[in-house]
Amino acid sequence: MAKTFAVIGGDLRNLKLAEHLAEDGHKVKLFGFKNIEISPKVTDEVSLEEAMKDSDVVVGPIPCSKDEQTINCTFYNLKIYLDDILRLMSKEQIFVAGFLSESIIHLMQNYDLQCHDILKREEMAVLNAIPTAEGAIQIALEEMPITLHNSKALVLGYGRIGKVLSKMLHGIGAKVHVAARKYQDLAQIEAMGYIPIRMPEVSTYLNTFDVIFNTVPHVIIDSKELQGIRKDSLIIDLASKPGGINFEKAKDLGVKTIWALSLPGKVAPVTAAKYMKDTIYNILNDSGL
Amino acid sequence: MAKTFAVIGGDLRNLKLAEHLAEDGHKVKLFGFKNIEISPKVTDEVSLEEAMKDSDVVVGPIPCSKDEQTINCTFYNLKIYLDDILRLMSKEQIFVAGFLSESIIHLMQNYDLQCHDILKREEMAVLNAIPTAEGAIQIALEEMPITLHNSKALVLGYGRIGKVLSKMLHGIGAKVHVAARKYQDLAQIEAMGYIPIRMPEVSTYLNTFDVIFNTVPHVIIDSKELQGIRKDSLIIDLASKPGGINFEKAKDLGVKTIWALSLPGKVAPVTAAKYMKDTIYNILNDSGL
Amino acid sequence: MAKTFAVIGGDLRNLKLAEHLAEDGHKVKLFGFKNIEISPKVTDEVSLEEAMKDSDVVVGPIPCSKDEQTINCTFYNLKIYLDDILRLMSKEQIFVAGFLSESIIHLMQNYDLQCHDILKREEMAVLNAIPTAEGAIQIALEEMPITLHNSKALVLGYGRIGKVLSKMLHGIGAKVHVAARKYQDLAQIEAMGYIPIRMPEVSTYLNTFDVIFNTVPHVIIDSKELQGIRKDSLIIDLASKPGGINFEKAKDLGVKTIWALSLPGKVAPVTAAKYMKDTIYNILNDSGL
Amino acid sequence: MAKTFAVIGGDLRNLKLAEHLAEDGHKVKLFGFKNIEISPKVTDEVSLEEAMKDSDVVVGPIPCSKDEQTINCTFYNLKIYLDDILRLMSKEQIFVAGFLSESIIHLMQNYDLQCHDILKREEMAVLNAIPTAEGAIQIALEEMPITLHNSKALVLGYGRIGKVLSKMLHGIGAKVHVAARKYQDLAQIEAMGYIPIRMPEVSTYLNTFDVIFNTVPHVIIDSKELQGIRKDSLIIDLASKPGGINFEKAKDLGVKTIWALSLPGKVAPVTAAKYMKDTIYNILNDSGL
Repeated sequence: MAKTFAVIGGDLRNLKLAEHLAEDGHKVKLFGFKNIEISPKVTDEVSLEEAMKDSDVVVGPIPCSKDEQTINCTFYNLKIYLDDILRLMSKEQIFVAGFLSESIIHLMQNYDLQCHDILKREEMAVLNAIPTAEGAIQIALEEMPITLHNSKALVLGYGRIGKVLSKMLHGIGAKVHVAARKYQDLAQIEAMGYIPIRMPEVSTYLNTFDVIFNTVPHVIIDSKELQGIRKDSLIIDLASKPGGINFEKAKDLGVKTIWALSLPGKVAPVTAAKYMKDTIYNILNDSGL
Repeated sequence: MAKTFAVIGGDLRNLKLAEHLAEDGHKVKLFGFKNIEISPKVTDEVSLEEAMKDSDVVVGPIPCSKDEQTINCTFYNLKIYLDDILRLMSKEQIFVAGFLSESIIHLMQNYDLQCHDILKREEMAVLNAIPTAEGAIQIALEEMPITLHNSKALVLGYGRIGKVLSKMLHGIGAKVHVAARKYQDLAQIEAMGYIPIRMPEVSTYLNTFDVIFNTVPHVIIDSKELQGIRKDSLIIDLASKPGGINFEKAKDLGVKTIWALSLPGKVAPVTAAKYMKDTIYNILNDSGL
Repeated sequence: MAKTFAVIGGDLRNLKLAEHLAEDGHKVKLFGFKNIEISPKVTDEVSLEEAMKDSDVVVGPIPCSKDEQTINCTFYNLKIYLDDILRLMSKEQIFVAGFLSESIIHLMQNYDLQCHDILKREEMAVLNAIPTAEGAIQIALEEMPITLHNSKALVLGYGRIGKVLSKMLHGIGAKVHVAARKYQDLAQIEAMGYIPIRMPEVSTYLNTFDVIFNTVPHVIIDSKELQGIRKDSLIIDLASKPGGINFEKAKDLGVKTIWALSLPGKVAPVTAAKYMKDTIYNILNDSGL
Repeated sequence: MAKTFAVIGGDLRNLKLAEHLAEDGHKVKLFGFKNIEISPKVTDEVSLEEAMKDSDVVVGPIPCSKDEQTINCTFYNLKIYLDDILRLMSKEQIFVAGFLSESIIHLMQNYDLQCHDILKREEMAVLNAIPTAEGAIQIALEEMPITLHNSKALVLGYGRIGKVLSKMLHGIGAKVHVAARKYQDLAQIEAMGYIPIRMPEVSTYLNTFDVIFNTVPHVIIDSKELQGIRKDSLIIDLASKPGGINFEKAKDLGVKTIWALSLPGKVAPVTAAKYMKDTIYNILNDSGL
């Protein structure tokens, strides 16, 4: 059933999200976009009030805010205050954005407002693994003096990103090794046709790899491990802070490391917008709307 | 470190397991195999006592027993009683077998004996998905008058078997659709390159499939759903009891269904023995042995 | 543009071909099918004359004839003579069948009649590699006591069948090795992600394989090579006469060999009929019809 | 058997080739490399004479020469004359380089000298398709605002590059369509699991693709075709001159095109050196050395 969406601020993803929603037949009102071409399918509102009025869903940016006060707006040079959004929201409306801080969530709950962190949705996290894996492969292709095909690649961790990245590397023709801790993950890795490595034994093999992708968000490749890594290897870290590499030590030893964060919005904003749309629909579905 | 294993009864898997263990340098004593060639690497004992004496691990069959009294012995025509095994076991020994009934487990625990149901180990279940998927594909190849390549295939459920089966069907060139309930599974299915279908909507599409594989252990394809399935379709049910198909109704309607159970031991006993070995090593590792 | 087809004799493939042609909007007349259900979309003619009259294309069986006199008819107990077909054909009609003997082709040409051996069409041969590969995999799944997944598989020859079979085996998870003679084929094999083996060196590696598929139509696995093959290996020969294995010697040595011929018609007659249809359209297209 | 190689000039590929040859146990003499670190495994000669003396094989650069007089030297600021190489060569020596002009080949033959254009070797061309495909994918990942996964991709041509590129795109999860002219190629495309499109009908579908890769070295995407391509599509041309796109017209219409040439040396020089080594061994093998 057609709904009304207010899309407030954000980057290219939110703009594309607005278009996608409009293409599906929804009414979409936009606020916080200047100096960028806006599709005639959506209405560009003059005020936050107009945009939010009568909206079923209010979509904010990913990440929502960097200063806890204003929301991120790539294409707008005035400030949009979170306080104003809160003030204008009704209890029937749903607020959706990414990386909501605990204080924002707390505040919303205090006012009995419904809010959802889209990045905490498991399906969004799974889908985001796709552009993350492609971004990691792009970096590897750019940086390596050898082909990924026939290269020895190691993926540390077999979670959401590890699963998709392994599949794509295998699809390009790399010799994919995956290190994991749980027996059942090791069994799954073998079942998928990759070479499983028990995490505690991974340091023994490190010097054999041309490229190492880390997906585990705690330091796995520390001083000791780094000493076993070849100088012509490349390490790409995809884990959020603190990352999985001792970067300082890596620099000292001359091991090339790249810490690649927030890839989905960078490498495939249009696709990321599509994932947002699908996930918002799921949120509505779960809410019985 | 080399251990002593007693392998008691069972089918070809236990015999192969014994050989595999011996090849890894362990001492292996066998009991319950007659009229079948036994590798010189293992010792064929004259009594249960001799076999179990000084063993670190006692391996029983999969399934352990059909009557709760004697253990399964494909190659032995006398009876081996569970009671005798219990009586001969010491608290230092580990008993490993498959499909242990609650009463056996209870009994063992009462005597302070260590026992492990190998089929309850998650990694064993994951590995068993490989021969199960191959067995399912074999049946499909035997029964279908069209190639799997370019066929429209539906996999119901995206658990252990669903994951491996989808991958193999995709590898052969089928157009793989997977139905699941959870959003995150649907996202994972899309990430893997298959076509996701929401389980509640699956009945809408049933008439488009050439072959349907069920992996969900409750009735999903009931009277209503069966009416939507083409007469030239094939349904292969891989789910344990009660299965996922209303078989009686299917028969009435002339829809071809095959209920394929316990495939690993049937289609690839030698590989199943290797999985058993790996899993027993994990059990020992977890037990600090 | 709609045409008129006469489908004369043959097996299930010709019957399905007739249905497929009718579904595409062509007029289809059938002769040589009794005691089998015939789709109402085609007309079952009472005589060869009626069937062939006004037909643009006359389709015979695969293979066309075993005795050079009558055509193959699985579902007809009277004889249909090739002479009669020749007598009834006009120069505007096109005759299409499989395995046309040189004498038939010669005879047709003498009468200025147009005939095409569908199996000599390169695209038909390529497509037939699909069911052939599936049939080979089915046999391997049935016969091997281990899973294809993780097995060491050797494909001898990288022609039409070798290409498709390698891809499917790889898709199931086998460790695929392909032996070929030409450098460029070996390079292509490597590019596809399989392990290339130079044909002259293949005998060195034979004892490492769990299953060997031959696609080369001359004896490659002779006495000497057979001695290097493990007794628990399986050899599946897909090559037409004389095949690629010294079968007699293999039997003496206790090496299990299976010579699998004419798989497409056996394992996937409905798909084979679809390939026939597509190829007949190509023939018409090439003929400017 | 160990040989002596003289590697003369060229870029990073020749330097790596020299190292690879030395690692295989050959004696390698280098000339034409300054201001770059040279492995101690090879000897850096002071003169062309010293380098070529007693060499079995003289390896020049890819491409050999841009001016028909001097050979390409990325890491050398003095000139090395082709005339000098010719003068110093004996009839027992083999000269190997890439893109040999007809006049050089003619000159060599006049002096009865053996020369081989390594890029004319079919296996080298097949192997070079691997880094070419990876380079094309890298460009697509860099330029597209959507993921390759689930994108609609078209590959024009199913030759060496088309085959590898299709496989890799499929492995990443793109919906791969391949346009070809020959029926047998279309059949092969279908057998590999891609969607075949007949070349004459390709213009009908052009507006549906997110990315188009051309591998055919004559203009296929001309004014008319360009008009059917979406403005948010990306065209990557991998064909050598004159390329397959009317670039001028594309620019006028605002269709984004990238002409990517000589990718192997750019994206994977170390791998390209390995291919050179393997191909040189094949040349020696063919020459009975």
